[in-house]
Amino acid sequence: MIRHVVLFTWDEEMTDELERQFVAELTALGPELKGLRAYHAGRDVGLVEGNFDFAVVADFEDAASYLAYRDHPGHQDIIARLSRPHTKTRAAVQYEF
Amino acid sequence: MIRHVVLFTWDEEMTDELERQFVAELTALGPELKGLRAYHAGRDVGLVEGNFDFAVVADFEDAASYLAYRDHPGHQDIIARLSRPHTKTRAAVQYEF
Repeated sequence: MIRHVVLFTWDEEMTDELERQFVAELTALGPELKGLRAYHAGRDVGLVEGNFDFAVVADFEDAASYLAYRDHPGHQDIIARLSRPHTKTRAAVQYEF
Repeated sequence: MIRHVVLFTWDEEMTDELERQFVAELTALGPELKGLRAYHAGRDVGLVEGNFDFAVVADFEDAASYLAYRDHPGHQDIIARLSRPHTKTRAAVQYEF
């Protein structure tokens, strides 16, 4: 299995509403994704100073299904409308587990 | 449940051996941690340019069990010996799922 992890910091114009829409649209994409095993996104709960703002963790059967998700037109469209315009910093890893 | 996610980039002196020891010691700590539900750490597989080097994703029953892990002397000792001396950048989020 491949776990895809991405953390974001947002600019000041990211709203709760946009963030909810981002999660809702990503989650709705799930059934279209072959090889997706788990998908959990959420905002930082504020326990620790200096954290990033938001996380996505998605588990895929293999590297091919992760890459299909990454390049899926629906996914690219969600990124272009909802996350990229408000991303200050982004950190990602894909690892085997 | 609280998911704790942390991504690292390492300096040039982080070796495969040190990284394996880091994972082994973190994993060995698991049974001592009340409320830990899942723990998976690993290095980036190299599918995507510009990624961070390493990820830890740990799922806890609640915020209290995450905070107990964070502050656990054994965990702090592992960090002090194995990750902090080789950390160039670190990004973290805790989120509910």
